[in-house]
Amino acid sequence: MTYKFIEGSVTAAKGFTASGVHCGIRKNKTKRDLGLIFCEKKCTAAAVYTKNLVQSSPITITKKNLSDGYAQAVIANSGNANTCNADGDLKAQQMCDLIAEELGISADDVIVASTGVIGQVLPIEPIASGIKPLAEALSVEGCTDVAEAIMTTDTVKKEVAVETVIGGKTVRIGGISKGSGMIHPNMATMLCFVTTDAAVSVDMLQKAVKAAADDTFNMVSIDGDTSTNDTLSVMASGLAGNDEITAEGGDYDIFLEALTAVCRELSRKMAKDGEGATKLLVCKVSGAVSDKDARGVAKSVICSSLLKAAMFGADANWGRVLCAIGYSGCDVDVKKVDVSFASSKGRIDVCKNGAGIDFSEDVAKEILLEDEIDILVELNSGSFCAEAYGCDLTYEYVKINGDYRT
Amino acid sequence: MTYKFIEGSVTAAKGFTASGVHCGIRKNKTKRDLGLIFCEKKCTAAAVYTKNLVQSSPITITKKNLSDGYAQAVIANSGNANTCNADGDLKAQQMCDLIAEELGISADDVIVASTGVIGQVLPIEPIASGIKPLAEALSVEGCTDVAEAIMTTDTVKKEVAVETVIGGKTVRIGGISKGSGMIHPNMATMLCFVTTDAAVSVDMLQKAVKAAADDTFNMVSIDGDTSTNDTLSVMASGLAGNDEITAEGGDYDIFLEALTAVCRELSRKMAKDGEGATKLLVCKVSGAVSDKDARGVAKSVICSSLLKAAMFGADANWGRVLCAIGYSGCDVDVKKVDVSFASSKGRIDVCKNGAGIDFSEDVAKEILLEDEIDILVELNSGSFCAEAYGCDLTYEYVKINGDYRT
Repeated sequence: MTYKFIEGSVTAAKGFTASGVHCGIRKNKTKRDLGLIFCEKKCTAAAVYTKNLVQSSPITITKKNLSDGYAQAVIANSGNANTCNADGDLKAQQMCDLIAEELGISADDVIVASTGVIGQVLPIEPIASGIKPLAEALSVEGCTDVAEAIMTTDTVKKEVAVETVIGGKTVRIGGISKGSGMIHPNMATMLCFVTTDAAVSVDMLQKAVKAAADDTFNMVSIDGDTSTNDTLSVMASGLAGNDEITAEGGDYDIFLEALTAVCRELSRKMAKDGEGATKLLVCKVSGAVSDKDARGVAKSVICSSLLKAAMFGADANWGRVLCAIGYSGCDVDVKKVDVSFASSKGRIDVCKNGAGIDFSEDVAKEILLEDEIDILVELNSGSFCAEAYGCDLTYEYVKINGDYRT
Repeated sequence: MTYKFIEGSVTAAKGFTASGVHCGIRKNKTKRDLGLIFCEKKCTAAAVYTKNLVQSSPITITKKNLSDGYAQAVIANSGNANTCNADGDLKAQQMCDLIAEELGISADDVIVASTGVIGQVLPIEPIASGIKPLAEALSVEGCTDVAEAIMTTDTVKKEVAVETVIGGKTVRIGGISKGSGMIHPNMATMLCFVTTDAAVSVDMLQKAVKAAADDTFNMVSIDGDTSTNDTLSVMASGLAGNDEITAEGGDYDIFLEALTAVCRELSRKMAKDGEGATKLLVCKVSGAVSDKDARGVAKSVICSSLLKAAMFGADANWGRVLCAIGYSGCDVDVKKVDVSFASSKGRIDVCKNGAGIDFSEDVAKEILLEDEIDILVELNSGSFCAEAYGCDLTYEYVKINGDYRT
């Protein structure tokens, strides 16, 4: 591990400040609904977006603004997705114009994002009136306020930062995210904003963002389905002073590992904060014949409603793991599959070669009562691995399934 | 419509009797757990099964027994799926042997099915001791008992029968099914047994079963995912006396329409009886560029957890319909999509050309408070149509999403 976790998030890296205010998009005055991240200098920037055919207006405008590979600020609101609105692009552009004028930067250097209800016209007045207080509140401590401003049904703020050394220079990467990790987590809007003081070229930054997202955020989901607004953006200020990363290898690998760590931790936090969830589930698949099959199996298992319900009930119902593997569409020999469950209380094997084995239900229960559960699937057919992140299904609905076996 | 609905189910057609008993696979003695359908003569028979790579032992044995296209009885148990068990095939064969001996028929003419927990050894003793009472209880009135015997988390029995005229002869088709229509209904085991007194050749019966299933049971699901045990079988006694249906056209079309009606009604009953569900949802898609795209859009919409939650809250959140269409992977021009909601209280248009239109929230609420809701999607791009069946998402989890827009 070439990095360590540190306190903070989007303002941990040199050059960045942030803020969040309540401007009035939401009726609840105690909840911030407009957030800002700003860098004192123009950054290289890159992003990945939802693959949904229906895309939000903020994504349309952000894609345009990032086409040159540079950005200096992020503005984001919650309470309204600004999607499927006839005047959506205009409103998203207005958000950029307003904050750019206030900050004295170019409107083309603004990343804009919205999350909330689809198909309701976004009122621009509260945002216009909130711009000045938002800019005035910029500070290093403001990272917590912007993390709150993008929350919707999230119950906790999601902030992560890491520190590493690249070319002899201390580099920091930090991020915030929102996403409530529902039964189909990808159908909820996921927003994630990452900042770093590493010097990274536009091309390599885009490559790193894509790679990090594929192993993390894109594994908190059944099949790459995404909401209309999903956005992950990274801004790199270069203020750490390292030689700019312009190619793969040494420095890039260290940067990617640290960036992936930030994204993975934010993914785990999102999964664990699933609506109504009581525990984080991680499905770790090994022995697959291809990368695609490893990912496919992991996602299929983590998204099985029946398995999620069983995990809520701390019921070692491994048959539901086998079932989810069976319908994953992946290349699997079901007669070779081994399944185990693990947590901080230990590990228990429950299925060998596709059939049940004797195990202690009491020990299994003790393991599964923990709040972070690993579902270990060994396919015994190849050398590829993957991890997927999810949560349990809770409440009355789940009681029916959680108790099904007894 | 060339058929009419009548009372009854699997014993409505000439030649069939049925029964259901409690034999002891389930601990709850008030719940029947072993069921039988019998025909006084050998029938042509056909079936379709789960596409899951993991398949139950009863399916393995039934496939073998139906390879010649004939059957005379169905035996089915609930409380144990007999799947992923080392001795599963042996036990499924024993079930066939036991009932065949008792009824004086060939064991190769038995359709066997199980539903319940995966990966627990099936105890054969209760079944062996239940065989005699089961056979002795055979009667026309027993259709209700066998419908109960296959229930798991179902809250209501599912029985349907129709009557039609083929070649001047009155023909009846009836069926029972079980399936609790969960969030991913297809991950629950669906069992459906249909009987008819029509004379139909093996080949045409297999063709009809496949066609009927594709338009009905396979549309109660997101993407064809199926449990390890799903089975739909049809037995045709020929006792109606019609000229045997041996080719497509005239008689076959009438038979298929009636068979599809039975399967559709059973599909609707399964969807409406979804665990915790308060209403049936039917997504009717028109104007698609292909049959595949029509089906894909309908399934994607009906399986959206967020939309299902909105329907529970009687919230006309059409943005979630657009979102589900957008990630369906189908060929759709989202700028052309119209969406309406309808029920017995009327119809309301909520989205035109991919954007919201003004509509009365009060009228929408009144329509959506009904217990059978149609979600109408006009893609305006072609001439293909499809219907998919589902249910709302309820309880605490759903409250979070159902109230999201307010």
